[in-house]
Amino acid sequence: MRCLVLGASGFIGTHLVASLAGLGHQVIAYGRSFRDKDTNIKYIIGDFSNENRWNEILSGVQVCYHLISTTVPKSSNDDPIADVTGNIIGALQFLEAARKKNVRIVFTSSGGTVYGRINSDSIDENHATDPLCSYGITKLAIEKYLLLYRELHGVRSVVLRIANPYGEGQQPDAIQGAVAVFMGRVLRGHTIDIWGDGSVIRDYIYVQDVVRAIIAASEYGGKVNVFNIGSGAGVSLLELLGMIEQVTSKKADIIFHPSRSFDLPRNVLSIAKAQQELRWTPEMPMIEGLKKTAIWMQKTLNEAV
Amino acid sequence: MRCLVLGASGFIGTHLVASLAGLGHQVIAYGRSFRDKDTNIKYIIGDFSNENRWNEILSGVQVCYHLISTTVPKSSNDDPIADVTGNIIGALQFLEAARKKNVRIVFTSSGGTVYGRINSDSIDENHATDPLCSYGITKLAIEKYLLLYRELHGVRSVVLRIANPYGEGQQPDAIQGAVAVFMGRVLRGHTIDIWGDGSVIRDYIYVQDVVRAIIAASEYGGKVNVFNIGSGAGVSLLELLGMIEQVTSKKADIIFHPSRSFDLPRNVLSIAKAQQELRWTPEMPMIEGLKKTAIWMQKTLNEAV
Repeated sequence: MRCLVLGASGFIGTHLVASLAGLGHQVIAYGRSFRDKDTNIKYIIGDFSNENRWNEILSGVQVCYHLISTTVPKSSNDDPIADVTGNIIGALQFLEAARKKNVRIVFTSSGGTVYGRINSDSIDENHATDPLCSYGITKLAIEKYLLLYRELHGVRSVVLRIANPYGEGQQPDAIQGAVAVFMGRVLRGHTIDIWGDGSVIRDYIYVQDVVRAIIAASEYGGKVNVFNIGSGAGVSLLELLGMIEQVTSKKADIIFHPSRSFDLPRNVLSIAKAQQELRWTPEMPMIEGLKKTAIWMQKTLNEAV
Repeated sequence: MRCLVLGASGFIGTHLVASLAGLGHQVIAYGRSFRDKDTNIKYIIGDFSNENRWNEILSGVQVCYHLISTTVPKSSNDDPIADVTGNIIGALQFLEAARKKNVRIVFTSSGGTVYGRINSDSIDENHATDPLCSYGITKLAIEKYLLLYRELHGVRSVVLRIANPYGEGQQPDAIQGAVAVFMGRVLRGHTIDIWGDGSVIRDYIYVQDVVRAIIAASEYGGKVNVFNIGSGAGVSLLELLGMIEQVTSKKADIIFHPSRSFDLPRNVLSIAKAQQELRWTPEMPMIEGLKKTAIWMQKTLNEAV
């Protein structure tokens, strides 16, 4: 099968490209830049917000994985207009080309931001969606446009609202990804800032589990459009740091700060629908996933020295 | 009080400006063009999607009524990118200026399009929102940005999801507004095209009832952000035409066509929340509202000859 991965140089994208190539698919990797290249893969460098070659790029493509975000949650509120322009307009330019082709789309939305303030212990896909950041609003708008293009033009698509992914390849110096940032600081002996008492609960999912969900979604023929993808379990920041200490055999040096009003106490996704419809379930125990991540990160940090 | 009406030359806007001026408020009317001018009102001609004078326009304004749409439901799907640019980016440019002022905002969203396919006889504000047109998606995104700006910057706002308004001033040759279009054709003896059997049920609300809801929303100090505004009752197309025949004393000449897949069978809003929180309720019986509309329209058509 001919697959196109948008955002192929990103954290999840890199893993997805490798998995798809491993399954024998013909992979086109679209991204802003690529470091390591594989001869089996066709690379296209482009700017998603400003791409005018979609007809050519989509030629013969059967499945397209749209993983691109031009913003991250934290800073998206600084410039919502850039967020709308880069992400919604970018997606519409892509969709206008895609609707004339017979291409299936899998879109990675955000389980951590589209729901906003949570009124339930376990969030299912029907939970209210009032995002507390522009990033969540643009993800939601793209979800709605995918549903609309299905209605109007028969474009098949599946939306995955993904929890907090972690694993090998997530950069410790990036501006998002608590696992990588914390682990990077513990491994280098740097202090860790925590706002509040560390009881904030999130849903962390290993990147290979996410990749299997994305591939399962592209093969799904049922009627459901939107799935939560998470571990199904909640882990507090202090528990996460405890596990990081365990897998790195290093002590975390934590500085506690007053809590911030916009940090939601709990966000854990219900994944019952994905388990039932996609016949997918997360497999990696968190401590094992963190071990693998720590081995990779230690190696990367050593090489960087 | 100093009030700014965005979309003041439109159907609802014209009525709102007159009511606010009648209540003794200082009114600034913003729109694309104005025919009849009132010396008590300050008029500003501008293009909402491309306005760079917001700081100046908002100076001293206490309440802003945002009634502008640069698109209509039917044609919004023809160019979703223009819809996003005109409406979402336009609203964000306005909001970025508004958040630095102490201004309350009332935004007219769309009860007829934000919900999409209906799964209930009476739609409350928690119903799923999967719009079947781009117009509904951009309305929804602006709603979400208003909620976000309240959270981030304390901008007070109320969203009104309005059903199908009708009344004096709605143009019979416009591309939306079933009441005015049908009435105009009946009055001129033109045929009326109906897709399906005319059993499609909608919620029609008299424009003065809408104006009272908008003013009530601007005075509201409670915690609810989103209200449905409708008549609370469903009327089929055939019932509507029957009433139009009654008030015009003319026969409707109907041509029936096969039904279209995108015409939803029923859309009637639950208005319990607005009744309770805004202490507002629709007052005009439909047959009376249609009588007033017919008198105005007959006069307008006579003058046009």
